[in-house]
Amino acid sequence: MNTQASCELCVQAGGEVVCRQDAFRVVLVDDPGYPGFCRVIWNAHVREMTDLPLSERELLMQAVWKVESAIRAVMAPAKMNIASLGNMVPHLHWHLIPRFDDDAHFPGPIWAQVQRPGTPDGLAKRQALLPELKNALIRQFSS
Amino acid sequence: MNTQASCELCVQAGGEVVCRQDAFRVVLVDDPGYPGFCRVIWNAHVREMTDLPLSERELLMQAVWKVESAIRAVMAPAKMNIASLGNMVPHLHWHLIPRFDDDAHFPGPIWAQVQRPGTPDGLAKRQALLPELKNALIRQFSS
Repeated sequence: MNTQASCELCVQAGGEVVCRQDAFRVVLVDDPGYPGFCRVIWNAHVREMTDLPLSERELLMQAVWKVESAIRAVMAPAKMNIASLGNMVPHLHWHLIPRFDDDAHFPGPIWAQVQRPGTPDGLAKRQALLPELKNALIRQFSS
Repeated sequence: MNTQASCELCVQAGGEVVCRQDAFRVVLVDDPGYPGFCRVIWNAHVREMTDLPLSERELLMQAVWKVESAIRAVMAPAKMNIASLGNMVPHLHWHLIPRFDDDAHFPGPIWAQVQRPGTPDGLAKRQALLPELKNALIRQFSS
């Protein structure tokens, strides 16, 4: 498998690994403002989606939809945000971020200016759903 | 088709339409800092990718890859950024943004803090590629 010693997603997990498959892994991102933020990280060092053959692209996107399904079922976000950016780490990974109208940046992207402090109640409620989210993710990838 | 009078992507094109198909349209976004920024907009008012049946989800993503292919072929960006956010307009649309190391936000997301003024030379060069990009997009969707 193509890996690069200088790439942090080649040498580190990139979060708490919830599911690991041959081609990709699903991690929970440790972001105190965004409990439930997940990443689907392609294991090989590939830069862009269109660098993958179509079958692998579809496999990766199916994983993205499984993660979206698990997050929606457990957390019922106001909106899902999905993004593949990778300007700093050009190794294919998809961000899946459940958004809520009381989160710190809503309705802006999480990379934009902070709109408000995240409400502690909302954050605590979402943090408490993480065990259920992990189970839902594991179920998605075991079927 | 499901549309909502209060949704700007139901009532407006959302940019300069380059390709229109039954299920989606491809538009060039008028963003002076990001020539080549495209959106693939689902025509019906649907909120999340996992609200679409799998066949439609695949159709939409195939369109996204076609747009990415056209942008990469014509503009050779340092990195492609792809995102489905929709917190303000919860009507499925994908942003495809060619990123360059001299653009205003690189390596941050375009929604993050400005890093520098975009270099006029780089912008002018990319602006000049738009006719070729439009042709490339049209070719992608006519095959």
